[in-house]
Amino acid sequence: MTNDPLPLAIVLVSGGLDSCVTAAIAAQTHTLAFLHVNYGQRTEHRERKAFLELADAFQVSETHRLDVDITHLARIGGSSLTQLDMDVSEADLENEDIPTSYVPFRNANILAIAVSWAEVIGAEDIFIGAVAEDGSGYPDCRPEFFEAFNQVIHTGTKPDTHIRIRGPLLHMTKKEIVLKGIELNAPLDKTWSCYQSGDKACGVCDSCALRLRGFQQAGVRDPLPYTVRPFYVPES
Amino acid sequence: MTNDPLPLAIVLVSGGLDSCVTAAIAAQTHTLAFLHVNYGQRTEHRERKAFLELADAFQVSETHRLDVDITHLARIGGSSLTQLDMDVSEADLENEDIPTSYVPFRNANILAIAVSWAEVIGAEDIFIGAVAEDGSGYPDCRPEFFEAFNQVIHTGTKPDTHIRIRGPLLHMTKKEIVLKGIELNAPLDKTWSCYQSGDKACGVCDSCALRLRGFQQAGVRDPLPYTVRPFYVPES
Repeated sequence: MTNDPLPLAIVLVSGGLDSCVTAAIAAQTHTLAFLHVNYGQRTEHRERKAFLELADAFQVSETHRLDVDITHLARIGGSSLTQLDMDVSEADLENEDIPTSYVPFRNANILAIAVSWAEVIGAEDIFIGAVAEDGSGYPDCRPEFFEAFNQVIHTGTKPDTHIRIRGPLLHMTKKEIVLKGIELNAPLDKTWSCYQSGDKACGVCDSCALRLRGFQQAGVRDPLPYTVRPFYVPES
Repeated sequence: MTNDPLPLAIVLVSGGLDSCVTAAIAAQTHTLAFLHVNYGQRTEHRERKAFLELADAFQVSETHRLDVDITHLARIGGSSLTQLDMDVSEADLENEDIPTSYVPFRNANILAIAVSWAEVIGAEDIFIGAVAEDGSGYPDCRPEFFEAFNQVIHTGTKPDTHIRIRGPLLHMTKKEIVLKGIELNAPLDKTWSCYQSGDKACGVCDSCALRLRGFQQAGVRDPLPYTVRPFYVPES
Protein backbone atom coordinates (compact mmCIF):
# COMPACT_ATOMS: atom_id res chain seq x y z
CA MET A 1 0.00 0.00 0.00
CA THR A 2 1.14 3.53 -0.75
CA ASN A 3 0.09 6.80 0.85
CA ASP A 4 -0.10 8.39 -2.58
CA PRO A 5 -2.96 6.57 -4.31
CA LEU A 6 -3.10 6.39 -8.09
CA PRO A 7 -5.71 8.55 -9.84
CA LEU A 8 -9.02 6.88 -10.63
CA ALA A 9 -9.88 5.74 -14.16
CA ILE A 10 -13.01 4.12 -15.56
CA VAL A 11 -12.41 1.21 -17.94
CA LEU A 12 -15.21 0.03 -20.22
CA VAL A 13 -15.07 -3.74 -19.82
CA SER A 14 -17.13 -5.88 -22.16
CA GLY A 15 -15.21 -8.95 -21.08
CA GLY A 16 -13.39 -9.33 -24.40
CA LEU A 17 -9.70 -9.47 -25.27
CA ASP A 18 -9.42 -5.76 -26.09
CA SER A 19 -11.01 -4.53 -22.86
CA CYS A 20 -8.80 -6.90 -20.84
CA VAL A 21 -5.60 -5.56 -22.41
CA THR A 22 -6.90 -1.99 -22.01
CA ALA A 23 -7.48 -2.63 -18.30
CA ALA A 24 -3.94 -4.00 -17.99
CA ILE A 25 -2.57 -0.82 -19.60
CA ALA A 26 -4.72 1.44 -17.38
CA ALA A 27 -3.67 -0.49 -14.25
CA GLN A 28 -0.07 0.65 -14.76
CA THR A 29 -1.00 4.25 -13.90
CA HIS A 30 -4.49 4.24 -12.36
CA THR A 31 -6.78 2.74 -9.75
CA LEU A 32 -9.49 1.02 -11.77
CA ALA A 33 -13.26 1.37 -11.86
CA PHE A 34 -15.00 -1.06 -14.24
CA LEU A 35 -18.15 -0.29 -16.23
CA HIS A 36 -20.03 -3.09 -17.98
CA VAL A 37 -23.23 -2.73 -19.98
CA ASN A 38 -25.91 -5.18 -20.98
CA TYR A 39 -27.31 -3.92 -24.28
CA GLY A 40 -29.22 -7.11 -24.98
CA GLN A 41 -26.41 -8.75 -26.91
CA ARG A 42 -26.87 -12.50 -27.54
CA THR A 43 -23.86 -13.39 -25.42
CA GLU A 44 -24.45 -11.10 -22.43
CA HIS A 45 -24.62 -13.99 -19.96
CA ARG A 46 -21.16 -15.20 -21.02
CA GLU A 47 -19.73 -11.67 -21.27
CA ARG A 48 -20.92 -10.77 -17.79
CA LYS A 49 -19.14 -13.84 -16.41
CA ALA A 50 -15.94 -12.64 -18.09
CA PHE A 51 -16.48 -9.10 -16.73
CA LEU A 52 -16.80 -10.37 -13.15
CA GLU A 53 -13.80 -12.67 -13.46
CA LEU A 54 -11.73 -9.81 -14.89
CA ALA A 55 -12.88 -7.45 -12.10
CA ASP A 56 -11.70 -10.04 -9.56
CA ALA A 57 -8.42 -10.59 -11.43
CA PHE A 58 -7.75 -6.83 -11.45
CA GLN A 59 -8.85 -6.51 -7.79
CA VAL A 60 -11.47 -3.86 -8.58
CA SER A 61 -13.36 -2.91 -5.40
CA GLU A 62 -17.12 -3.55 -5.21
CA THR A 63 -17.89 0.20 -5.11
CA HIS A 64 -15.93 0.67 -8.31
CA ARG A 65 -17.96 -1.85 -10.33
CA LEU A 66 -20.96 -0.55 -12.27
CA ASP A 67 -23.14 -2.87 -14.29
CA VAL A 68 -25.80 -1.08 -16.34
CA ASP A 69 -28.84 -2.30 -18.28
CA ILE A 70 -29.34 -0.55 -21.62
CA THR A 71 -31.41 -3.27 -23.23
CA HIS A 72 -33.51 -0.53 -24.82
CA LEU A 73 -30.83 -0.71 -27.55
CA ALA A 74 -32.06 -4.23 -28.27
CA ARG A 75 -35.67 -2.98 -28.28
CA ILE A 76 -34.60 -0.31 -30.77
CA GLY A 77 -32.92 -3.04 -32.83
CA GLY A 78 -30.98 -2.72 -36.06
CA SER A 79 -28.20 -5.18 -35.20
CA SER A 80 -27.63 -8.90 -35.57
CA LEU A 81 -26.03 -8.80 -32.10
CA THR A 82 -29.34 -8.01 -30.47
CA GLN A 83 -31.99 -9.19 -32.96
CA LEU A 84 -32.32 -12.95 -32.97
CA ASP A 85 -34.03 -12.89 -36.39
CA MET A 86 -30.92 -11.40 -38.03
CA ASP A 87 -27.96 -13.66 -38.81
CA VAL A 88 -24.53 -12.76 -37.48
CA SER A 89 -22.41 -12.16 -40.59
CA GLU A 90 -19.60 -14.60 -41.10
CA ALA A 91 -16.21 -13.02 -41.15
CA ASP A 92 -14.99 -11.33 -44.30
CA LEU A 93 -11.96 -9.40 -43.19
CA GLU A 94 -11.51 -7.84 -46.64
CA ASN A 95 -15.06 -6.47 -46.81
CA GLU A 96 -15.25 -2.78 -45.95
CA ASP A 97 -19.05 -2.66 -45.50
CA ILE A 98 -20.38 -2.06 -42.00
CA PRO A 99 -21.12 -5.55 -40.60
CA THR A 100 -24.63 -6.54 -39.49
CA SER A 101 -23.28 -6.80 -35.93
CA TYR A 102 -23.00 -2.99 -35.76
CA VAL A 103 -25.26 -1.73 -32.91
CA PRO A 104 -26.30 1.78 -33.93
CA PHE A 105 -24.34 4.41 -31.96
CA ARG A 106 -23.62 1.93 -29.18
CA ASN A 107 -20.31 3.43 -28.10
CA ALA A 108 -21.82 6.89 -27.68
CA ASN A 109 -24.45 5.41 -25.37
CA ILE A 110 -21.81 3.63 -23.28
CA LEU A 111 -19.42 6.59 -23.16
CA ALA A 112 -22.23 8.91 -22.04
CA ILE A 113 -22.86 6.65 -19.03
CA ALA A 114 -19.13 6.51 -18.29
CA VAL A 115 -18.87 10.30 -18.33
CA SER A 116 -21.84 10.68 -15.96
CA TRP A 117 -20.18 8.21 -13.58
CA ALA A 118 -16.76 9.86 -13.96
CA GLU A 119 -18.21 13.25 -13.06
CA VAL A 120 -19.66 11.84 -9.82
CA ILE A 121 -16.74 9.64 -8.66
CA GLY A 122 -14.03 12.07 -9.77
CA ALA A 123 -12.36 9.98 -12.48
CA GLU A 124 -10.61 12.03 -15.15
CA ASP A 125 -9.74 9.23 -17.57
CA ILE A 126 -12.09 6.84 -19.35
CA PHE A 127 -10.34 3.95 -21.08
CA ILE A 128 -12.01 2.20 -24.00
CA GLY A 129 -10.56 -0.75 -25.89
CA ALA A 130 -11.73 0.37 -29.31
CA VAL A 131 -9.59 -0.62 -32.28
CA ALA A 132 -9.59 1.40 -35.48
CA GLU A 133 -6.79 -0.21 -37.46
CA ASP A 134 -7.32 -3.84 -38.38
CA GLY A 135 -10.75 -3.27 -36.92
CA SER A 136 -14.40 -4.04 -37.18
CA GLY A 137 -15.59 -1.37 -39.61
CA TYR A 138 -17.87 0.20 -36.98
CA PRO A 139 -18.19 3.98 -37.41
CA ASP A 140 -18.19 4.54 -33.63
CA CYS A 141 -14.70 3.00 -33.30
CA ARG A 142 -12.88 5.61 -35.41
CA PRO A 143 -10.41 8.10 -33.94
CA GLU A 144 -12.48 11.05 -35.30
CA PHE A 145 -15.47 9.78 -33.31
CA PHE A 146 -13.50 9.79 -30.04
CA GLU A 147 -11.97 13.20 -30.78
CA ALA A 148 -15.47 14.59 -31.34
CA PHE A 149 -16.69 12.90 -28.16
CA ASN A 150 -13.92 14.54 -26.12
CA GLN A 151 -15.23 17.88 -27.38
CA VAL A 152 -18.76 16.91 -26.26
CA ILE A 153 -17.36 16.12 -22.80
CA HIS A 154 -15.44 19.38 -22.69
CA THR A 155 -18.55 21.41 -23.54
CA GLY A 156 -21.15 19.33 -21.67
CA THR A 157 -19.70 18.77 -18.19
CA LYS A 158 -18.97 21.06 -15.27
CA PRO A 159 -16.14 23.54 -15.99
CA ASP A 160 -14.01 22.18 -13.12
CA THR A 161 -13.91 18.63 -14.55
CA HIS A 162 -11.32 17.51 -17.10
CA ILE A 163 -12.58 14.12 -18.26
CA ARG A 164 -11.19 12.59 -21.42
CA ILE A 165 -11.52 9.38 -23.41
CA ARG A 166 -8.39 7.32 -23.85
CA GLY A 167 -8.13 4.58 -26.46
CA PRO A 168 -4.69 3.02 -26.05
CA LEU A 169 -5.46 0.27 -28.61
CA LEU A 170 -6.86 2.60 -31.25
CA HIS A 171 -3.86 2.38 -33.55
CA MET A 172 -2.73 -1.13 -32.63
CA THR A 173 -3.20 -4.29 -34.66
CA LYS A 174 -4.71 -7.36 -33.02
CA LYS A 175 -1.25 -8.92 -33.14
CA GLU A 176 0.15 -5.98 -31.13
CA ILE A 177 -2.76 -6.17 -28.69
CA VAL A 178 -2.10 -9.87 -28.03
CA LEU A 179 1.62 -9.20 -27.52
CA LYS A 180 0.89 -6.26 -25.19
CA GLY A 181 -1.49 -8.43 -23.14
CA ILE A 182 1.15 -11.13 -22.76
CA GLU A 183 3.83 -8.55 -21.86
CA LEU A 184 1.57 -7.16 -19.09
CA ASN A 185 0.47 -10.58 -17.84
CA ALA A 186 -3.16 -9.76 -18.63
CA PRO A 187 -5.59 -12.60 -17.72
CA LEU A 188 -6.47 -13.36 -21.38
CA ASP A 189 -7.84 -16.79 -20.40
CA LYS A 190 -10.72 -15.05 -18.57
CA THR A 191 -11.92 -13.11 -21.64
CA TRP A 192 -14.74 -13.80 -24.11
CA SER A 193 -14.97 -12.29 -27.61
CA CYS A 194 -17.29 -14.53 -29.66
CA TYR A 195 -20.58 -13.10 -31.01
CA GLN A 196 -22.31 -16.50 -30.78
CA SER A 197 -23.34 -18.14 -27.54
CA GLY A 198 -22.05 -21.60 -26.64
CA ASP A 199 -19.50 -23.26 -24.38
CA LYS A 200 -16.79 -22.82 -26.99
CA ALA A 201 -16.10 -19.79 -29.17
CA CYS A 202 -17.39 -20.34 -32.74
CA GLY A 203 -14.19 -19.35 -34.55
CA VAL A 204 -16.01 -17.95 -37.59
CA CYS A 205 -17.81 -14.74 -36.55
CA ASP A 206 -16.15 -11.34 -37.20
CA SER A 207 -14.96 -11.09 -33.63
CA CYS A 208 -13.48 -14.62 -33.45
CA ALA A 209 -11.84 -14.20 -36.84
CA LEU A 210 -10.11 -10.95 -35.82
CA ARG A 211 -9.02 -12.42 -32.50
CA LEU A 212 -7.72 -15.70 -33.90
CA ARG A 213 -5.83 -13.93 -36.67
CA GLY A 214 -4.22 -11.70 -34.03
CA PHE A 215 -3.04 -14.62 -31.91
CA GLN A 216 -1.83 -16.43 -35.02
CA GLN A 217 0.18 -13.42 -36.19
CA ALA A 218 1.60 -13.00 -32.68
CA GLY A 219 2.70 -16.62 -32.77
CA VAL A 220 0.77 -17.41 -29.59
CA ARG A 221 -1.99 -19.99 -29.06
CA ASP A 222 -5.27 -18.44 -27.88
CA PRO A 223 -6.05 -20.06 -24.48
CA LEU A 224 -9.83 -20.17 -25.22
CA PRO A 225 -11.54 -23.32 -26.53
CA TYR A 226 -12.92 -23.03 -30.11
CA THR A 227 -15.39 -25.08 -32.10
CA VAL A 228 -13.42 -24.33 -35.28
CA ARG A 229 -9.94 -22.82 -35.49
CA PRO A 230 -9.67 -21.54 -39.08
CA PHE A 231 -6.25 -20.69 -40.40
CA TYR A 232 -5.91 -17.12 -41.65
CA VAL A 233 -3.30 -16.43 -44.29
CA PRO A 234 -1.19 -13.54 -42.98
CA GLU A 235 -1.04 -10.51 -45.24
CA SER A 236 2.23 -10.20 -47.12
CA MET B 1 -54.14 12.42 -45.67
CA THR B 2 -51.49 13.26 -48.23
CA ASN B 3 -49.59 10.95 -50.56
CA ASP B 4 -46.37 12.76 -49.74
CA PRO B 5 -45.80 12.12 -46.03
CA LEU B 6 -43.74 14.49 -43.95
CA PRO B 7 -40.24 13.34 -42.97
CA LEU B 8 -39.90 11.67 -39.59
CA ALA B 9 -38.40 13.52 -36.61
CA ILE B 10 -37.73 12.39 -33.06
CA VAL B 11 -38.72 14.85 -30.34
CA LEU B 12 -37.32 14.47 -26.83
CA VAL B 13 -40.38 14.92 -24.65
CA SER B 14 -39.91 15.27 -20.91
CA GLY B 15 -43.46 16.50 -20.56
CA GLY B 16 -42.47 20.07 -19.73
CA LEU B 17 -43.32 23.39 -21.34
CA ASP B 18 -40.20 23.52 -23.50
CA SER B 19 -40.61 20.04 -24.98
CA CYS B 20 -44.29 20.74 -25.70
CA VAL B 21 -43.49 23.92 -27.65
CA THR B 22 -40.62 22.10 -29.42
CA ALA B 23 -43.04 19.37 -30.50
CA ALA B 24 -45.45 22.01 -31.81
CA ILE B 25 -42.64 23.55 -33.88
CA ALA B 26 -41.50 20.15 -35.19
CA ALA B 27 -45.10 19.19 -36.08
CA GLN B 28 -45.20 22.01 -38.66
CA THR B 29 -42.72 20.18 -40.89
CA HIS B 30 -42.40 16.59 -39.64
CA THR B 31 -44.23 13.43 -38.63
CA LEU B 32 -43.43 13.03 -34.94
CA ALA B 33 -41.81 10.24 -32.95
CA PHE B 34 -41.65 10.90 -29.18
CA LEU B 35 -38.84 9.74 -26.88
CA HIS B 36 -39.25 9.95 -23.11
CA VAL B 37 -36.73 8.81 -20.52
CA ASN B 38 -37.05 7.91 -16.88
CA TYR B 39 -33.73 8.82 -15.26
CA GLY B 40 -35.02 8.36 -11.74
CA GLN B 41 -36.10 11.96 -11.32
CA ARG B 42 -38.36 12.63 -8.31
CA THR B 43 -41.28 13.64 -10.50
CA GLU B 44 -41.09 10.90 -13.14
CA HIS B 45 -44.59 9.63 -12.38
CA ARG B 46 -46.06 13.08 -13.06
CA GLU B 47 -43.79 13.72 -16.06
CA ARG B 48 -44.73 10.42 -17.67
CA LYS B 49 -48.42 11.32 -17.39
CA ALA B 50 -47.66 14.60 -19.18
CA PHE B 51 -45.64 12.75 -21.85
CA LEU B 52 -48.53 10.38 -22.60
CA GLU B 53 -51.10 13.18 -22.69
CA LEU B 54 -48.87 15.18 -25.04
CA ALA B 55 -48.34 12.12 -27.28
CA ASP B 56 -52.12 11.76 -27.52
CA ALA B 57 -52.57 15.48 -28.14
CA PHE B 58 -50.01 15.40 -30.99
CA GLN B 59 -51.51 12.13 -32.34
CA VAL B 60 -48.19 10.27 -32.17
CA SER B 61 -48.68 6.64 -33.26
CA GLU B 62 -47.96 3.86 -30.77
CA THR B 63 -44.98 2.60 -32.81
CA HIS B 64 -43.45 6.05 -32.69
CA ARG B 65 -43.45 6.30 -28.88
CA LEU B 66 -40.35 5.12 -27.03
CA ASP B 67 -40.15 5.21 -23.26
CA VAL B 68 -36.73 4.28 -21.89
CA ASP B 69 -35.48 3.50 -18.39
CA ILE B 70 -32.08 5.01 -17.60
CA THR B 71 -32.46 4.97 -13.84
CA HIS B 72 -28.78 4.01 -13.62
CA LEU B 73 -28.26 7.80 -13.72
CA ALA B 74 -30.02 7.92 -10.36
CA ARG B 75 -27.83 5.05 -9.08
CA ILE B 76 -24.80 7.04 -10.22
CA GLY B 77 -26.20 10.06 -8.39
CA GLY B 78 -24.78 13.55 -8.14
CA SER B 79 -28.05 15.45 -8.56
CA SER B 80 -30.78 16.72 -6.26
CA LEU B 81 -33.27 15.65 -8.94
CA THR B 82 -32.46 11.99 -8.35
CA GLN B 83 -30.98 11.84 -4.85
CA LEU B 84 -33.63 12.23 -2.19
CA ASP B 85 -31.00 13.17 0.43
CA MET B 86 -30.05 16.31 -1.53
CA ASP B 87 -32.29 19.38 -1.37
CA VAL B 88 -33.59 20.90 -4.60
CA SER B 89 -32.09 24.40 -4.67
CA GLU B 90 -34.57 27.23 -4.47
CA ALA B 91 -34.50 29.52 -7.43
CA ASP B 92 -31.85 32.18 -7.65
CA LEU B 93 -32.13 33.39 -11.21
CA GLU B 94 -29.12 35.70 -10.85
CA ASN B 95 -26.78 32.97 -9.58
CA GLU B 96 -24.47 31.63 -12.29
CA ASP B 97 -23.34 28.51 -10.41
CA ILE B 98 -24.50 25.17 -11.74
CA PRO B 99 -27.67 24.28 -9.75
CA THR B 100 -27.83 21.10 -7.62
CA SER B 101 -30.54 19.84 -9.98
CA TYR B 102 -27.91 19.30 -12.73
CA VAL B 103 -27.84 15.58 -13.64
CA PRO B 104 -24.29 14.89 -14.82
CA PHE B 105 -24.16 14.63 -18.64
CA ARG B 106 -27.84 13.76 -18.81
CA ASN B 107 -28.50 15.28 -22.22
CA ALA B 108 -25.65 13.30 -23.81
CA ASN B 109 -27.19 10.08 -22.46
CA ILE B 110 -30.62 10.98 -23.85
CA LEU B 111 -29.32 12.19 -27.22
CA ALA B 112 -27.28 8.99 -27.66
CA ILE B 113 -30.48 6.93 -27.30
CA ALA B 114 -32.29 9.24 -29.73
CA VAL B 115 -29.55 8.83 -32.34
CA SER B 116 -29.60 5.01 -32.04
CA TRP B 117 -33.38 5.11 -32.56
CA ALA B 118 -33.11 7.62 -35.41
CA GLU B 119 -30.62 5.40 -37.23
CA VAL B 120 -33.05 2.45 -37.05
CA ILE B 121 -36.34 4.22 -37.89
CA GLY B 122 -34.83 6.54 -40.47
CA ALA B 123 -35.38 9.89 -38.76
CA GLU B 124 -32.92 12.60 -39.79
CA ASP B 125 -33.90 15.27 -37.28
CA ILE B 126 -33.85 15.09 -33.49
CA PHE B 127 -35.59 17.98 -31.77
CA ILE B 128 -34.63 18.92 -28.23
CA GLY B 129 -36.22 21.72 -26.22
CA ALA B 130 -33.01 22.92 -24.59
CA VAL B 131 -32.76 26.60 -23.72
CA ALA B 132 -29.40 28.32 -23.47
CA GLU B 133 -30.41 31.97 -23.06
CA ASP B 134 -32.39 32.78 -19.96
CA GLY B 135 -31.69 29.19 -19.03
CA SER B 136 -30.83 26.81 -16.30
CA GLY B 137 -27.03 27.06 -16.17
CA TYR B 138 -26.62 23.38 -17.16
CA PRO B 139 -23.46 22.83 -19.22
CA ASP B 140 -25.21 20.27 -21.45
CA CYS B 141 -27.73 22.87 -22.62
CA ARG B 142 -25.21 25.16 -24.32
CA PRO B 143 -25.06 25.63 -28.11
CA GLU B 144 -21.38 24.50 -28.14
CA PHE B 145 -22.45 21.20 -26.58
CA PHE B 146 -25.00 20.53 -29.34
CA GLU B 147 -22.56 21.58 -32.08
CA ALA B 148 -20.02 19.12 -30.68
CA PHE B 149 -22.69 16.42 -30.44
CA ASN B 150 -23.60 16.89 -34.11
CA GLN B 151 -19.95 16.17 -34.91
CA VAL B 152 -20.11 13.00 -32.80
CA ILE B 153 -23.17 11.91 -34.79
CA HIS B 154 -21.48 12.73 -38.08
CA THR B 155 -18.42 10.64 -37.19
CA GLY B 156 -20.14 7.84 -35.25
CA THR B 157 -23.07 6.75 -37.43
CA LYS B 158 -23.29 4.99 -40.79
CA PRO B 159 -22.02 7.16 -43.67
CA ASP B 160 -25.40 7.10 -45.43
CA THR B 161 -27.25 8.68 -42.48
CA HIS B 162 -27.50 12.44 -41.98
CA ILE B 163 -28.90 12.82 -38.49
CA ARG B 164 -28.69 16.16 -36.73
CA ILE B 165 -29.82 17.73 -33.46
CA ARG B 166 -32.16 20.70 -33.72
CA GLY B 167 -32.77 23.04 -30.81
CA PRO B 168 -35.36 25.57 -31.98
CA LEU B 169 -35.64 27.12 -28.48
CA LEU B 170 -31.91 27.42 -27.89
CA HIS B 171 -31.77 31.18 -28.34
CA MET B 172 -35.30 31.98 -27.17
CA THR B 173 -36.29 33.48 -23.84
CA LYS B 174 -39.01 31.79 -21.77
CA LYS B 175 -41.27 34.69 -22.71
CA GLU B 176 -40.74 33.94 -26.40
CA ILE B 177 -41.31 30.21 -25.79
CA VAL B 178 -44.63 30.89 -24.09
CA LEU B 179 -45.71 33.21 -26.92
CA LYS B 180 -44.63 30.65 -29.57
CA GLY B 181 -46.60 27.92 -27.79
CA ILE B 182 -49.72 30.06 -27.76
CA GLU B 183 -49.24 31.05 -31.42
CA LEU B 184 -49.04 27.34 -32.39
CA ASN B 185 -51.92 26.27 -30.12
CA ALA B 186 -49.61 23.95 -28.20
CA PRO B 187 -51.41 22.03 -25.39
CA LEU B 188 -49.56 23.89 -22.59
CA ASP B 189 -52.18 22.80 -20.04
CA LYS B 190 -50.96 19.19 -20.42
CA THR B 191 -47.34 19.98 -19.47
CA TRP B 192 -45.48 19.62 -16.15
CA SER B 193 -42.26 21.49 -15.27
CA CYS B 194 -41.95 21.47 -11.46
CA TYR B 195 -38.98 19.69 -9.81
CA GLN B 196 -41.04 18.81 -6.74
CA SER B 197 -43.78 16.22 -6.66
CA GLY B 198 -47.30 17.16 -5.61
CA ASP B 199 -50.70 17.85 -7.13
CA LYS B 200 -49.80 21.47 -7.70
CA ALA B 201 -46.52 22.90 -8.98
CA CYS B 202 -44.46 24.37 -6.12
CA GLY B 203 -43.77 27.73 -7.73
CA VAL B 204 -40.35 28.15 -6.08
CA CYS B 205 -37.95 25.61 -7.64
CA ASP B 206 -35.62 26.70 -10.48
CA SER B 207 -37.90 25.22 -13.10
CA CYS B 208 -41.14 26.76 -11.76
CA ALA B 209 -39.42 30.12 -11.30
CA LEU B 210 -38.20 30.20 -14.92
CA ARG B 211 -41.58 29.09 -16.22
CA LEU B 212 -43.64 31.53 -14.16
CA ARG B 213 -41.38 34.44 -15.03
CA GLY B 214 -41.79 33.51 -18.72
CA PHE B 215 -45.60 33.50 -18.54
CA GLN B 216 -45.56 36.74 -16.53
CA GLN B 217 -43.33 38.48 -19.07
CA ALA B 218 -45.53 37.19 -21.89
CA GLY B 219 -48.56 38.65 -20.13
CA VAL B 220 -50.31 35.27 -20.08
CA ARG B 221 -51.57 33.31 -17.08
CA ASP B 222 -49.98 29.85 -16.77
CA PRO B 223 -52.87 27.33 -16.94
CA LEU B 224 -51.24 25.04 -14.31
CA PRO B 225 -52.23 25.15 -10.62
CA TYR B 226 -49.47 26.41 -8.27
CA THR B 227 -49.02 26.23 -4.50
CA VAL B 228 -47.31 29.63 -4.58
CA ARG B 229 -47.21 32.09 -7.47
CA PRO B 230 -44.31 34.42 -6.67
CA PHE B 231 -44.06 37.66 -8.57
CA TYR B 232 -40.84 38.14 -10.51
CA VAL B 233 -39.70 41.69 -11.20
CA PRO B 234 -39.05 41.89 -14.95
CA GLU B 235 -35.54 42.98 -15.93
CA SER B 236 -35.35 46.60 -17.06
